[in-house]
Amino acid sequence: MVMIKVGIAGGTGYVGIELIRILLGHPDVEITHIATQTHIGQPLSKVYPHLQTLAKLECTALDPVEMVKNCDVIFTALPHGHALKLGALVLDAGKKLIDLGADFRLKDGALYETWYGTPAASSDLLQKSVYGLPELVDRNEIAHAALIANPGCYPTCAALGAAPALAAGLVKTEGMIFDAKSGTSGAGRGMALGSHFCEVAESFKAYNVAGAHRHTPEIEQILGKAAGKNVTVQFTPHLLPIVRGLLVTAYFQLEKDLPPEEIWEIYACAYQNEPFVRVYPLGELPQTANVRGSNYCDIGLQVDSRTGRLIVISVIDNLVKGAAGQAVQNMNLMFGLPETMGLKLLCPTYP
Amino acid sequence: MVMIKVGIAGGTGYVGIELIRILLGHPDVEITHIATQTHIGQPLSKVYPHLQTLAKLECTALDPVEMVKNCDVIFTALPHGHALKLGALVLDAGKKLIDLGADFRLKDGALYETWYGTPAASSDLLQKSVYGLPELVDRNEIAHAALIANPGCYPTCAALGAAPALAAGLVKTEGMIFDAKSGTSGAGRGMALGSHFCEVAESFKAYNVAGAHRHTPEIEQILGKAAGKNVTVQFTPHLLPIVRGLLVTAYFQLEKDLPPEEIWEIYACAYQNEPFVRVYPLGELPQTANVRGSNYCDIGLQVDSRTGRLIVISVIDNLVKGAAGQAVQNMNLMFGLPETMGLKLLCPTYP
Amino acid sequence: MVMIKVGIAGGTGYVGIELIRILLGHPDVEITHIATQTHIGQPLSKVYPHLQTLAKLECTALDPVEMVKNCDVIFTALPHGHALKLGALVLDAGKKLIDLGADFRLKDGALYETWYGTPAASSDLLQKSVYGLPELVDRNEIAHAALIANPGCYPTCAALGAAPALAAGLVKTEGMIFDAKSGTSGAGRGMALGSHFCEVAESFKAYNVAGAHRHTPEIEQILGKAAGKNVTVQFTPHLLPIVRGLLVTAYFQLEKDLPPEEIWEIYACAYQNEPFVRVYPLGELPQTANVRGSNYCDIGLQVDSRTGRLIVISVIDNLVKGAAGQAVQNMNLMFGLPETMGLKLLCPTYP
Amino acid sequence: MVMIKVGIAGGTGYVGIELIRILLGHPDVEITHIATQTHIGQPLSKVYPHLQTLAKLECTALDPVEMVKNCDVIFTALPHGHALKLGALVLDAGKKLIDLGADFRLKDGALYETWYGTPAASSDLLQKSVYGLPELVDRNEIAHAALIANPGCYPTCAALGAAPALAAGLVKTEGMIFDAKSGTSGAGRGMALGSHFCEVAESFKAYNVAGAHRHTPEIEQILGKAAGKNVTVQFTPHLLPIVRGLLVTAYFQLEKDLPPEEIWEIYACAYQNEPFVRVYPLGELPQTANVRGSNYCDIGLQVDSRTGRLIVISVIDNLVKGAAGQAVQNMNLMFGLPETMGLKLLCPTYP
Repeated sequence: MVMIKVGIAGGTGYVGIELIRILLGHPDVEITHIATQTHIGQPLSKVYPHLQTLAKLECTALDPVEMVKNCDVIFTALPHGHALKLGALVLDAGKKLIDLGADFRLKDGALYETWYGTPAASSDLLQKSVYGLPELVDRNEIAHAALIANPGCYPTCAALGAAPALAAGLVKTEGMIFDAKSGTSGAGRGMALGSHFCEVAESFKAYNVAGAHRHTPEIEQILGKAAGKNVTVQFTPHLLPIVRGLLVTAYFQLEKDLPPEEIWEIYACAYQNEPFVRVYPLGELPQTANVRGSNYCDIGLQVDSRTGRLIVISVIDNLVKGAAGQAVQNMNLMFGLPETMGLKLLCPTYP
Repeated sequence: MVMIKVGIAGGTGYVGIELIRILLGHPDVEITHIATQTHIGQPLSKVYPHLQTLAKLECTALDPVEMVKNCDVIFTALPHGHALKLGALVLDAGKKLIDLGADFRLKDGALYETWYGTPAASSDLLQKSVYGLPELVDRNEIAHAALIANPGCYPTCAALGAAPALAAGLVKTEGMIFDAKSGTSGAGRGMALGSHFCEVAESFKAYNVAGAHRHTPEIEQILGKAAGKNVTVQFTPHLLPIVRGLLVTAYFQLEKDLPPEEIWEIYACAYQNEPFVRVYPLGELPQTANVRGSNYCDIGLQVDSRTGRLIVISVIDNLVKGAAGQAVQNMNLMFGLPETMGLKLLCPTYP
Repeated sequence: MVMIKVGIAGGTGYVGIELIRILLGHPDVEITHIATQTHIGQPLSKVYPHLQTLAKLECTALDPVEMVKNCDVIFTALPHGHALKLGALVLDAGKKLIDLGADFRLKDGALYETWYGTPAASSDLLQKSVYGLPELVDRNEIAHAALIANPGCYPTCAALGAAPALAAGLVKTEGMIFDAKSGTSGAGRGMALGSHFCEVAESFKAYNVAGAHRHTPEIEQILGKAAGKNVTVQFTPHLLPIVRGLLVTAYFQLEKDLPPEEIWEIYACAYQNEPFVRVYPLGELPQTANVRGSNYCDIGLQVDSRTGRLIVISVIDNLVKGAAGQAVQNMNLMFGLPETMGLKLLCPTYP
Repeated sequence: MVMIKVGIAGGTGYVGIELIRILLGHPDVEITHIATQTHIGQPLSKVYPHLQTLAKLECTALDPVEMVKNCDVIFTALPHGHALKLGALVLDAGKKLIDLGADFRLKDGALYETWYGTPAASSDLLQKSVYGLPELVDRNEIAHAALIANPGCYPTCAALGAAPALAAGLVKTEGMIFDAKSGTSGAGRGMALGSHFCEVAESFKAYNVAGAHRHTPEIEQILGKAAGKNVTVQFTPHLLPIVRGLLVTAYFQLEKDLPPEEIWEIYACAYQNEPFVRVYPLGELPQTANVRGSNYCDIGLQVDSRTGRLIVISVIDNLVKGAAGQAVQNMNLMFGLPETMGLKLLCPTYP
């Protein structure tokens, strides 16, 4: 069997290293290039000692031409504005690119520029790219795409929790609130006071409140698709003093008074064939630890008859289903492999 | 000077022990009785070694008659249903009772019975009791009360964040959402799987979702007063993997388009003379660590012009402003002492 | 291929559930029985929601005869004193038993009774059992054993760190000190004040100091074997406010002045063919997170020329190499499978 | 009453901010200057929002002449090499300096230069400075000193645990081992990968093993004094995933077989008049949370008759007794105030 040759640009951030963890267990893949900005020339096991004896790779400076030439697929886990420069090169060479950053997530280039403050990818690239949330988009599109915009962690968790209700017209498209809480690994390995141990531990805070977070338009884009019309959402991220885990508490106004069982049925149906989405029995709600280290999105539902609201709790591991795991899920689809390959054995690590 | 003699019933739970920490630093108070159910006959410093050399008290079984006879004021930090039995005794003896449990919080006895499933206090006691949230009730009432219902932690934090907006008619009284997150000490010292280290650490979850938490009617009662009419709220508690700290993210629909500065002004005015409420400058939001160990409630405001919402972030230390600190604040008022006595020196412990 | 039928007695403790996580990824194994004391009749996914859709097993009461009849191998993760009752039954039936408790760890029954205060296993069983620390015992013995005493977490980590130095006569056998620190999952899921979140988080303590911990004689037994004579050790366990992870700081007096490189060489040689022991380059030391979720024992060495001491830092995940992972390693040996089967893909989860 | 005017150089690090917390509660002190390197011109409450309404101070650039002129005492919480430049200035002006850094801790300038790699303070300054560990040095010396070397956190905790045994000749002066574990606030607020939340949380490690930590010669200096002769110690620091708290597990070889009660008596006697050292009853051991936020050093003793060792467990809050609290204790002595002023009300915050 011919192994898929993989290059990772930005391989020593937390998303990159999680990609490596997952791909090391993928039977059809060989990681051939790790490009980084900060550890050039070092063996990966020097940067991340937990990988010693596991990965005999060396960190190199990013050489796009070389990487494209030698790899079948490139994963980019870079700050926004970098991956879009690789797009044309990869496509021209007939290779594939899965961007775990934000460069191809917003289809509307102008919207991207408003939120990110840097030039958007060319409209050609934006048009060719597919938003890789397999459960909510046409899998054929992903399978045939050469360019995948791997979704953000918050949008993944929010959208999986909201989509069935919106698609079934159960809830109003106005007034949706996503109160989200993420573990600190979502902020990456880059040093910042906000990620300093003593500033995070034994504390809790909101940040980028009132629609200031860049995931807001991304959530609106994917939910607009599910709802069949433009939507405006309230999205509030918070920082949890944990490493991994992301939980969204979503509030929806029900269109009409439905028995919880019926709503549950709609969710259960929507995800019945999805290997990575688990709808909990009524009365049970997921906690983030239930998906730690795995590619699952777990969902719990609760109806409040006093307020006429549906409350959806969804959880993911921000580094897996919120980043590297979903990227591998997309890669599997793009290469005609079983969607769960290399991901099935990531059983949640509990406790 | 004559010292105020204090008895604490339920003195070895986390609320009780925090009361002891605070009262040990109160210049006008002497703790004379610690009654507990589980450590009878033991020196307090055996149960809580951090108190050795500080508190030379012994835990005794609760003897209400004896305690009432010998104390000027009794703090009850007991499971609901116990304090209400002491009410008449205390009042008849002309002493004072501050209940840190739920027995006197809901003025409507029937409502209490619906939510707590046990008989309510007599209507006489309920009528005489005063809900001790000094910033939001008439301080004269507290000063002249013999019976204080010390508010719950969630209601304290939610109400301080919401009251100015409601009182000023800034926001709609419908559709209010309080997405709340509390440290684990709020669940007490009683053993339960939900408080087991490995079940809480590195995880996060919602609980009692959809109006199932007993603090719901309490929030509605106090906010109904602020709004001048009955209100129904959405209240969702979550469990944080930290010991102390409680944050409420509150969502309100603005009645009309107001500049944030004007809203901020209303909050700043409302709390300008309050020693324990701090309204942050616009653009800054509090984190729970900012009030750790102190009696402050810190408040940050954010207006979302896209959605027409006011978002209020309020934080407290659930064991201080959410329990023991507020109780001492009430005691000070009841005994004609400066409201901040013994509380002013509780500077937040940061980091 | 015929699958190995596995029964787990004590399947809903933390060790049991970790065994299930690992065995679900083992290609040659089928879990057929989960026996528990506390959740009889419940689906496993009700007790541990993280397993939903993964394990369609039901918890049953322990029925030894039934379990022995239907399983090829039984793992016991029970309080001490229970597994020894199953020994004869399993052996008579020609099946295999791997005890993750303490019942067969001490070869000297009298010593067991001194430390555990309950009757030891029969001397026949003790003689037939093999201490399953594959790196330090004759693997043939494990391969041919029907009864394995799976080592304790502390002894595993201490012994792997000490054995090469002792075996090579590098260090004095007197005066060895093992200052050990373990995550809280080592204390199990049983409720106890010492495992209560607010008592563990943001704190640190020693416990069972001065040779009071039951792992003391176990460490002495295995190190005595490595040293070729009886040894007495100082072993001090501490409780870390983390879920998983165990680190031992071991102090040895060097027999003579050796260059660190030479000592390192001896360790590197000792473990050069070991898939699960990784000796770090000189100058690097492992942290517990480097082995989280994996079956590795990582070892770092440091020589202090000022004091003439060798200091060895060794780390494991207490639930994996310290319990369930090592048990599966033993199982593989007993069934003639590759030793790393089902364990190789447990890449450390970092961060 | 005339207030003592205090200046703090390095006021926005964790030690500086803890000094501010304590001094805000000190009745005889007024903080007049906060000099920093990184937040010049900002109000302190902008840098540390938890201080808003509490401290109306502005951060200024360090102007030694100005500060010396206007302050009665200067606390320096700066990287090593800075405070020594202020020494002469302060002394010439007849003011006082308490250095929380390392510049005056080692009496032997050459030793300082070996360990710190920068020029030592002048021998005149070194001679005039007093090592401010009040429980172990002559308090008269502190009272009459103008220049205090405030001890390091590890040396404080190690020395308080070891001194009585050494002074009484109970234990051998050879072979002492101090296995120490500190919370992350000890590493300060400066950004470093080693203080990054995701690198510290849920992990544990040793660092600067084998006598590589700069506190080693400081421990040897103070213990040499207690022992009456030069000593060499083994000191191994570890990093705890907690914010505050430091625990030392100290191993001593007993000179002769003594009943534990006798040893306990010696410790109890040694510290009987010490307000900030608490010797636990035999059989009880302190945890770090027992001193959190307070100026206590708590000590527990255990004798191992199997190995002939005395094991001493001592704990402090590294930011209080290990830094700012001890500095205030010294200040009180220097100004003829009661030693506990401003420190007595720092009751440990538990939980």
